[in-house]
Amino acid sequence: MILKIEKPEKDIVSYLQEKVDNLTKPKGALGVLEDIAIQIGTIQQKLSPKLEKPHHIVFAGDHGIVDEGVSAAPKAVTYQMIANFWNGGAGINFLCRQHGFELSVVDAGVDYDFTESDPIVKAKIRKGTRNFLHEAAMTSSEMHQAMEKGAEQVADIHKTGCNIISFGEMGIGNTSPSAMWMHYFTGIPLEDCIGAGCDHTGDIVPHKLKVLSAAKENYTGKGDAEDIMAYFGGYEMVMAVGAMLKAAELKMVILVDGFIMTNCLLAATKLYPEVQDYALFSHQGDEAGHKLVLEYLKAKPILHLDLRLGEGTGAVCAYPIVDSAVRMLNEMGTFKEVKVSKYF
Amino acid sequence: MILKIEKPEKDIVSYLQEKVDNLTKPKGALGVLEDIAIQIGTIQQKLSPKLEKPHHIVFAGDHGIVDEGVSAAPKAVTYQMIANFWNGGAGINFLCRQHGFELSVVDAGVDYDFTESDPIVKAKIRKGTRNFLHEAAMTSSEMHQAMEKGAEQVADIHKTGCNIISFGEMGIGNTSPSAMWMHYFTGIPLEDCIGAGCDHTGDIVPHKLKVLSAAKENYTGKGDAEDIMAYFGGYEMVMAVGAMLKAAELKMVILVDGFIMTNCLLAATKLYPEVQDYALFSHQGDEAGHKLVLEYLKAKPILHLDLRLGEGTGAVCAYPIVDSAVRMLNEMGTFKEVKVSKYF
Repeated sequence: MILKIEKPEKDIVSYLQEKVDNLTKPKGALGVLEDIAIQIGTIQQKLSPKLEKPHHIVFAGDHGIVDEGVSAAPKAVTYQMIANFWNGGAGINFLCRQHGFELSVVDAGVDYDFTESDPIVKAKIRKGTRNFLHEAAMTSSEMHQAMEKGAEQVADIHKTGCNIISFGEMGIGNTSPSAMWMHYFTGIPLEDCIGAGCDHTGDIVPHKLKVLSAAKENYTGKGDAEDIMAYFGGYEMVMAVGAMLKAAELKMVILVDGFIMTNCLLAATKLYPEVQDYALFSHQGDEAGHKLVLEYLKAKPILHLDLRLGEGTGAVCAYPIVDSAVRMLNEMGTFKEVKVSKYF
Repeated sequence: MILKIEKPEKDIVSYLQEKVDNLTKPKGALGVLEDIAIQIGTIQQKLSPKLEKPHHIVFAGDHGIVDEGVSAAPKAVTYQMIANFWNGGAGINFLCRQHGFELSVVDAGVDYDFTESDPIVKAKIRKGTRNFLHEAAMTSSEMHQAMEKGAEQVADIHKTGCNIISFGEMGIGNTSPSAMWMHYFTGIPLEDCIGAGCDHTGDIVPHKLKVLSAAKENYTGKGDAEDIMAYFGGYEMVMAVGAMLKAAELKMVILVDGFIMTNCLLAATKLYPEVQDYALFSHQGDEAGHKLVLEYLKAKPILHLDLRLGEGTGAVCAYPIVDSAVRMLNEMGTFKEVKVSKYF
């Protein structure tokens, strides 16, 4: 996938900073809201940016590595939860309703035959990846196909007038491929990249480490970014990478969710480093390793709510804070307008 | 002020926990949202609590101690900012608009003569406190009068159907009385209770410590909670204490803002410890000392956004997270309803 991702022009930053510093508050007193406002103003190249038609995509896929017992939940939960999304009863549903997000659910590679009338975006590459303990999870061709399909989704949504997009995932077992990506892309030891996933007891961690260490030993590929992505990745993850890159090309604001989506953004930076200029990191989750990958990216997450649900719940949860930042720029008075002594 | 603040019955907690654990998510996966949901369900004694007509009060007052040069901003900024609130251009205004809060601005003790037609709640005790370097900031009678007026505001707002209320303040110099309260009420050394206030350079801190240490040396009062509150307090702070206590008596959810409001809640607990069961701590701010007072209260703040504006901005900013918690309880499906394998 060949893209043209431009680094946002930085000339506007000093004008945005001046605008922020003249609002009726002590200098810097709105903290993180000020940082977000300046980033979004820079992305949109506007002193009065606007957020339009927020949209959330959940990419769903299954994972061959689940056969090795790396997840506390059975694979069937992936498609069961998709039906829950349709019925509006999942975590991501009430958050999308609360904050006015459109929600799309995309079958990137679920191990289930949906019917034609099921309300899911049909983009299935294959019914689940292969087991990366023994072979590549996907072929290079499948990976590129998935990235293209992710990019297409975003291009279509952009046409509706959306300029802020968030991504989530549903895929039992996908903390394992995420840990592998994180390990190879950051150099952080594998044991520090592995967490409990949906297993609240944490008992699964030693077994998961054993399986993923064996997978690492078995891997004899080239070790470049695309090979790591294909060998260990999930279809929903690769599709999210393509989606994030397209969103950056279209100069949209990207809300990055938890552990899995942060590793997708990490992978995206290995292909096009400029993508990070368009990304807001919404939440530092409970999964071990998330803090470390955020630190590697020098990312400052907006929320710390100990969420570990996935689906993109952290990203949508953070939206009102992002909206507050933009409203600050557009709705606050300046010292001059309202005759308050400029007290800094 | 004699109140009857009941500790919420805890019998409902296990039923709320069971409800939360049967929602379609791994156990505990919505982290802080689950804690908030259980606390609000317990306050309202309902498995399906509701948030009704959120209301924010800004209490405003001036401080005699400002004569000693403890604030970077001139005293006049207090009344200038009040006009900014009326015009809708302050930080708290866009946040109240964003999240559907009614906003009341209360003159608790501003050193300015408002006119009859000014849209401010008239509850002035005196035009600013006395300088506590040399004498008590207020008399005991003034303090009780202020607490009563705070309680009256809340009782009136409760009658409109509001069951969640947040409090903020506007009062140049009020990090100094707050530091004194914190020091006496927690035993934490005075130097750890003092921050820069609205001075983003931090240069003011050594002088502030000198003045407040001298005030401590000069103090020869009884040292009980009411005496500390009256000797060092601000009218807006004492009025907020009365308001918080009344809100707890009326079983409302209290959103506690930053450094100053946290110290008001701290003072309230010294009179009626049960008040804390009704309090959500919205934000850990940038002011040195705020982290320590939150730790003393064993409080877990919802947001960490480096805000240091006051006005109650942190509390209103946190509202959508609180709303998300309540929606989780009311809108998510259960494993049984939606046929998802209960995977924990």
